[in-house]
Amino acid sequence: MSTPINLGLIGAGRIGRVHAENIQRRMKDARVILVADVNEDAARRCADDFGVKYAVQDHHLILGSPAIDAVVICSATHTHAQIICEAAAAGKHIFCEKPIDFNLTAIDEALAAVAKAGVKLQIGFNRRFDANFARVRQALSSGEIGQPHLMHIISRDPGPPPLDYIKVSGGIFLDMTIHDFDMARFLMGCEVEEIFTAAAVLVDRQIGAAGDLDTALITLKFENGALGVIDNSRRAVYGYDQRVEVLGSDGGISTANLYPNCATISTAEGVRRDLPLHFFMDRYIDSYVNEMAAFVDAVRNDTPVPVGGIDGRVPVVMGLAARRSYDENRPVKLAEIAA
Amino acid sequence: MSTPINLGLIGAGRIGRVHAENIQRRMKDARVILVADVNEDAARRCADDFGVKYAVQDHHLILGSPAIDAVVICSATHTHAQIICEAAAAGKHIFCEKPIDFNLTAIDEALAAVAKAGVKLQIGFNRRFDANFARVRQALSSGEIGQPHLMHIISRDPGPPPLDYIKVSGGIFLDMTIHDFDMARFLMGCEVEEIFTAAAVLVDRQIGAAGDLDTALITLKFENGALGVIDNSRRAVYGYDQRVEVLGSDGGISTANLYPNCATISTAEGVRRDLPLHFFMDRYIDSYVNEMAAFVDAVRNDTPVPVGGIDGRVPVVMGLAARRSYDENRPVKLAEIAA
Amino acid sequence: MSTPINLGLIGAGRIGRVHAENIQRRMKDARVILVADVNEDAARRCADDFGVKYAVQDHHLILGSPAIDAVVICSATHTHAQIICEAAAAGKHIFCEKPIDFNLTAIDEALAAVAKAGVKLQIGFNRRFDANFARVRQALSSGEIGQPHLMHIISRDPGPPPLDYIKVSGGIFLDMTIHDFDMARFLMGCEVEEIFTAAAVLVDRQIGAAGDLDTALITLKFENGALGVIDNSRRAVYGYDQRVEVLGSDGGISTANLYPNCATISTAEGVRRDLPLHFFMDRYIDSYVNEMAAFVDAVRNDTPVPVGGIDGRVPVVMGLAARRSYDENRPVKLAEIAA
Amino acid sequence: MSTPINLGLIGAGRIGRVHAENIQRRMKDARVILVADVNEDAARRCADDFGVKYAVQDHHLILGSPAIDAVVICSATHTHAQIICEAAAAGKHIFCEKPIDFNLTAIDEALAAVAKAGVKLQIGFNRRFDANFARVRQALSSGEIGQPHLMHIISRDPGPPPLDYIKVSGGIFLDMTIHDFDMARFLMGCEVEEIFTAAAVLVDRQIGAAGDLDTALITLKFENGALGVIDNSRRAVYGYDQRVEVLGSDGGISTANLYPNCATISTAEGVRRDLPLHFFMDRYIDSYVNEMAAFVDAVRNDTPVPVGGIDGRVPVVMGLAARRSYDENRPVKLAEIAA
Repeated sequence: MSTPINLGLIGAGRIGRVHAENIQRRMKDARVILVADVNEDAARRCADDFGVKYAVQDHHLILGSPAIDAVVICSATHTHAQIICEAAAAGKHIFCEKPIDFNLTAIDEALAAVAKAGVKLQIGFNRRFDANFARVRQALSSGEIGQPHLMHIISRDPGPPPLDYIKVSGGIFLDMTIHDFDMARFLMGCEVEEIFTAAAVLVDRQIGAAGDLDTALITLKFENGALGVIDNSRRAVYGYDQRVEVLGSDGGISTANLYPNCATISTAEGVRRDLPLHFFMDRYIDSYVNEMAAFVDAVRNDTPVPVGGIDGRVPVVMGLAARRSYDENRPVKLAEIAA
Repeated sequence: MSTPINLGLIGAGRIGRVHAENIQRRMKDARVILVADVNEDAARRCADDFGVKYAVQDHHLILGSPAIDAVVICSATHTHAQIICEAAAAGKHIFCEKPIDFNLTAIDEALAAVAKAGVKLQIGFNRRFDANFARVRQALSSGEIGQPHLMHIISRDPGPPPLDYIKVSGGIFLDMTIHDFDMARFLMGCEVEEIFTAAAVLVDRQIGAAGDLDTALITLKFENGALGVIDNSRRAVYGYDQRVEVLGSDGGISTANLYPNCATISTAEGVRRDLPLHFFMDRYIDSYVNEMAAFVDAVRNDTPVPVGGIDGRVPVVMGLAARRSYDENRPVKLAEIAA
Repeated sequence: MSTPINLGLIGAGRIGRVHAENIQRRMKDARVILVADVNEDAARRCADDFGVKYAVQDHHLILGSPAIDAVVICSATHTHAQIICEAAAAGKHIFCEKPIDFNLTAIDEALAAVAKAGVKLQIGFNRRFDANFARVRQALSSGEIGQPHLMHIISRDPGPPPLDYIKVSGGIFLDMTIHDFDMARFLMGCEVEEIFTAAAVLVDRQIGAAGDLDTALITLKFENGALGVIDNSRRAVYGYDQRVEVLGSDGGISTANLYPNCATISTAEGVRRDLPLHFFMDRYIDSYVNEMAAFVDAVRNDTPVPVGGIDGRVPVVMGLAARRSYDENRPVKLAEIAA
Repeated sequence: MSTPINLGLIGAGRIGRVHAENIQRRMKDARVILVADVNEDAARRCADDFGVKYAVQDHHLILGSPAIDAVVICSATHTHAQIICEAAAAGKHIFCEKPIDFNLTAIDEALAAVAKAGVKLQIGFNRRFDANFARVRQALSSGEIGQPHLMHIISRDPGPPPLDYIKVSGGIFLDMTIHDFDMARFLMGCEVEEIFTAAAVLVDRQIGAAGDLDTALITLKFENGALGVIDNSRRAVYGYDQRVEVLGSDGGISTANLYPNCATISTAEGVRRDLPLHFFMDRYIDSYVNEMAAFVDAVRNDTPVPVGGIDGRVPVVMGLAARRSYDENRPVKLAEIAA
């Protein structure tokens, strides 16, 4: 094999550490050689824990290093667009956590910078790389269930994040549903034209007081004529609930939740099993490895990334449309937002 | 035990024969003593097959018979409202197949006649009496899963009915979804306030040419703040697909389809089981017995029927609202229709 | 259709009433016209409840009636063999509940009487007519899973019968396992050659004190080379546990338990469902109808019965072999017993 | 944290590479610093692939290195006992793949050497560390299902190994069932007293010609009075079939197979899912990490290993008893073999 590609990690928080661990421990053809975090201690800890050579505070040191082939952006959301622009200007390939930004202008500037520089940009929609959703995509793209007619995406968190987070999250549609918007496009293989949002505050009144929602049913009309619905809740007490199902002209496909074990216990009280995996890190652990491997492959072989810049933009459009639909209680075409 | 109550059956078609068989063979405290059908041969065959004493052409003979305690109306839909009025005037208790009528004025006249006569009227929403949906209702009414937040009702036929039927069916919302509208109210234990319909013709263009739809996602906003969605398709190739799930503040409940057997076969090609029950008569066989037993109980013991006249009216309002929502592509409040 | 055949029911206890109800309410081409029970009140109640014309104490009145085509023997086990002989002599076809007898000589005399008279004899191994086990048999006979290699039969009661019953039951192998011995032969489509029994008293010491066992694993070697194991317990606290699985050269098939509903409830404590059907009457309700319909068909069309006299004899041989294997702690060939 | 412990790996074949990868990539407190293989190229490749510093041919270099804290023995089975003796004499802690040996005398000498040296010895029964079987053990040890009565262990390979391997494998009971013997003891938490084996050649006649068997049902009588059965086949065409179930006085517990995805596809032909995981490396991938972590913990903290030398000896006794039972067609007490 040829030399592994050299990565610079920008942001050593929770998700940054996940990528660091996956790259250092599970991948042969890539390695993190520099990690930057505004909190230099965090950068240092990450470097120590996962065998990264250098830790710095200023991410420009990464961008300026000729040894670096690509960057992995895991910093705060509001810094993504700017760092993408800087990295593109520095000629580095880019893996960026979702969302690029909440502002379409900022996104478009970032995508333009990427296009101009001719570097690769992959957005971190890891769920596409989960074996279960990939199986659904396969069924749809191979025609195993014929033409798609109806789609359900169930996506519920075990519990709401802290209120402080909610307040800066961009709202449920840009923070939580954005993953499901990506999933809808990915699975269906075409774009959504119109969105209608029914939503409510049923989990925690404080979320409502903060101007956000915690429960939603979002109807999607796809370009291919199919219909879909996304079901979101900030709290499913039994755990992380992540399922999809699709009805097609020749059949249907559905996925179940994942469990820590496959044991069933029967007693005089009932037949039961343990709760599904509760935490997204447990549920999607392999998908993070798979998405990074795909990025590294694309960089090494100069092939297209599987989740490009436009895939980062459209879900933000959808999130804005979903909110407008809720605010005005009417179906909203994506064209209204995207224009 | 006291004497069984005497029933007159009006209409000896498919569903009429189901009720005749159930009453004659599975119930001790009621019996059909007269069956009427405009097709007198059909009435005769029904009488012969299930041991009914008399068969006639004119249902007025039933209404005029002092021996009859109650009537079971299984005639064509357009005759329901008038026969209800006649039966009420004759002082007979009434079991009537759904829908009462597609016209709210006709429904209101029928309900007024029933109220004036002080007789009982039960509408044939049999699915409420299915053990699976009853279990969901129990979970909701007992608080087993807390306050309801989100509901999914999946209701798909194995294939569309003949086009000739479609044309006089009243449309998918009054013909098919009406059962699901009833289910939504029954399970949630409260009314729907607003409906938004996304629908399409994806199964058969001829259905569209006839002015109807074959695929729909109908969003419901309930009075209690909960949200729901009904998923309808005229064709699920794998069979009759009838499931519900509800997320509540303290948990969730969901039902699966029913199968002709519980065997799983594993071969080198995959792990499979036979198709779910394909026909609504097989799927809901017990519910027909249970609903009639409930009606007979109510008549014998002079207690309220479990599915009253208003339960026949509201789903029609919902069906009309669903269609208007589709036609105008906007959420429609039930108050718009019902007023 | 031709006239229904006329049945005489001998024994109006629990199982007799099941057959009476099934015949009278669910079958068109047969009817019970006479019921006999040594307890004449029981015979009378049965006749009243299910519309049987005559009730008598002495079953000879049935055997002597020229109107009777066939008898259904549901009396106490120790009377079966003799009544079979009498019925055969009277030229009546015979449906007899299992077991024919615990004594092979008595069985052989009964079978000889049947052979001499040329009447039909069907034994009440109802489980063969359960849709689930029938599906397994179909998989094996059609070659869907290739040649059978390994079989598991799980057969557990929700709780032990009263001790008084245990004492006269013939022991677990002749009372409970006998059904599983029949199932093994039926599913495999060939005979067992050798049996090894491991058994214990783990549920209730009083069962042991009565000389019986309550827990067993019985290894079977079939003529076709396949191996099988029967798992019996007198108490599975979660309910009636009735499953089979077979591994074949081209795949496997397994059945699950049956449940009163298909709802799954997820709460913060776990994912659960209600208990499986608890009572054999609920679990096997349809199989009783199916077996009687098969008997009636055989009589009406003069075709072979699906469960003949030899099918009543062999499981008794197996039960005796199983006990001897336990007593002597060694594998026992059926040829030792049958000879 | 303190310094990681230093491991020497003896044997760089398939299982040796699994341990190398797990230790180097997933563990922080241990590292392989030396790898030995009689095939020096294999040792070199292993070292290169997983970042091991030194690769040698002669394992004595490992035993003689003062830097080495413990050895991981993954060499050919016939070398295990001798290397255990040597490693013990060298004062190294030992992790050894199963089986220690097929000869009880050799095993006893190895265990004596270990005892004399006072080093730790852990045997590689990795399945104990699988989350599913661990959950069953937890149910049994916590009393969640009461006292155990009946146990089934289903353990089937997707296909037989090459005939050349079969010939030197020690036979199905020492090669394949040995894992299930360990599982039986582990789950039940007590010893087996007596074994009865029914076995056959049904998969491949050449296996029979080689003096071995490919299909078996092995009945176990446990010291606590419970009964169990192990079901082995060398070929389940649908994949690696690894399940257990236990009936207890207060309930039952059972495990299902693991699948590459949780998708269910319904078409007009049936309801199906993809095959279970086919290969033991996929099925048990986490258990290998967990067992090594447990060994490292025991060495670092000087606590008892979870699977000791006696746990390596008893399954060999059981394998010998199983074979004798088959050869003599009688139940065999372990005391006969162990003495």
